[in-house]
Amino acid sequence: MVVTKRIGLKTKGNGQILDITGQVAQEVTDSGLKDGTVTVFVSGSTGGVTTVEYESGLLSDLQDLFDRLAPSHIHYQHNLRWGDGNGHAHVRASLLGPSLTVPFVDRRLTLGTWQQIVFIDFDNRPRSRELVLQLVGE
Amino acid sequence: MVVTKRIGLKTKGNGQILDITGQVAQEVTDSGLKDGTVTVFVSGSTGGVTTVEYESGLLSDLQDLFDRLAPSHIHYQHNLRWGDGNGHAHVRASLLGPSLTVPFVDRRLTLGTWQQIVFIDFDNRPRSRELVLQLVGE
Amino acid sequence: MVVTKRIGLKTKGNGQILDITGQVAQEVTDSGLKDGTVTVFVSGSTGGVTTVEYESGLLSDLQDLFDRLAPSHIHYQHNLRWGDGNGHAHVRASLLGPSLTVPFVDRRLTLGTWQQIVFIDFDNRPRSRELVLQLVGE
Repeated sequence: MVVTKRIGLKTKGNGQILDITGQVAQEVTDSGLKDGTVTVFVSGSTGGVTTVEYESGLLSDLQDLFDRLAPSHIHYQHNLRWGDGNGHAHVRASLLGPSLTVPFVDRRLTLGTWQQIVFIDFDNRPRSRELVLQLVGE
Repeated sequence: MVVTKRIGLKTKGNGQILDITGQVAQEVTDSGLKDGTVTVFVSGSTGGVTTVEYESGLLSDLQDLFDRLAPSHIHYQHNLRWGDGNGHAHVRASLLGPSLTVPFVDRRLTLGTWQQIVFIDFDNRPRSRELVLQLVGE
Repeated sequence: MVVTKRIGLKTKGNGQILDITGQVAQEVTDSGLKDGTVTVFVSGSTGGVTTVEYESGLLSDLQDLFDRLAPSHIHYQHNLRWGDGNGHAHVRASLLGPSLTVPFVDRRLTLGTWQQIVFIDFDNRPRSRELVLQLVGE
């Protein structure tokens, strides 16, 4: 069985990291499915999903990582052509990836105790986002 | 229900980024499934899949990113042992990952308007590639 | 149909890369499913999964990559707050991702000949780990 859910988010952009674990867990419960996988998917090319221990030190460390790997101030061909200044956001999103698949067993996500599902909005401005949750299970 | 499809690609290697969105969308349509997920998987250790806004500026920016993170000219133990000079291709592929899972709803991929599915061939020579598409749905 | 399996691992931490292909392949065989996907998921925030050609040169190259991208000796806010010194392990894990989905067809993983599934333990000490394998198929 397949159940599709959607999560709406208001973000500040600029690398903001949002904990969406509670919302994903709730949708798993509401789906009526017992065992399966939930794929969390970003419809858009400047955001990504992963997991992290959601504490303020690590949120800062993770933002520092992306600032090192793809600084916002270096040259991007995208910015030359489109003038929206978010070339760094695009390449960060491609590197992290738009998709995360998490198993659930007996209606519960199989996350570790200190592991949360996060959406990172790399864009350079506030955004309204919609994530697709595709649950496949029984 | 599970439906397996395959996509054949001829690439130039050397970081070439190919837009495979049309082919994936076509296979979803042809599968007869209405709702589910398609997992795009690279059988091989020197290519990866992700999404990006497919415009020439960003293609260049994304290649620059991988050139910075894993330059081709630095020392790789793999090159010492195997002499094929593609150590950078292997580690880039491992970092990006060989797998992408995209939901589809009512026979359509849930991609954003400016978001395409791409295969990146990091190898240092032209290759013939076969990607596996595993569709799970109903 | 959904089948849940678990793999227990003893690791040395510190970036050790373990080849788990044989165990994943065995669980696919034992599941009785013919076609589908297996999602390999790390319950925990300091490990990740990907694929690589499992030869000692590349294992060293891949560890070098993560040492460059997120060195262990630079400043991490996480270390200041929690004192466990594994800030680098957390951000490496978030970057690589905790989840990998691999198709199987006719009871066989669709891996390339020189492509193995690996778990990387980025933590700074030996760990006992449990990976969740969620098989969805028929």
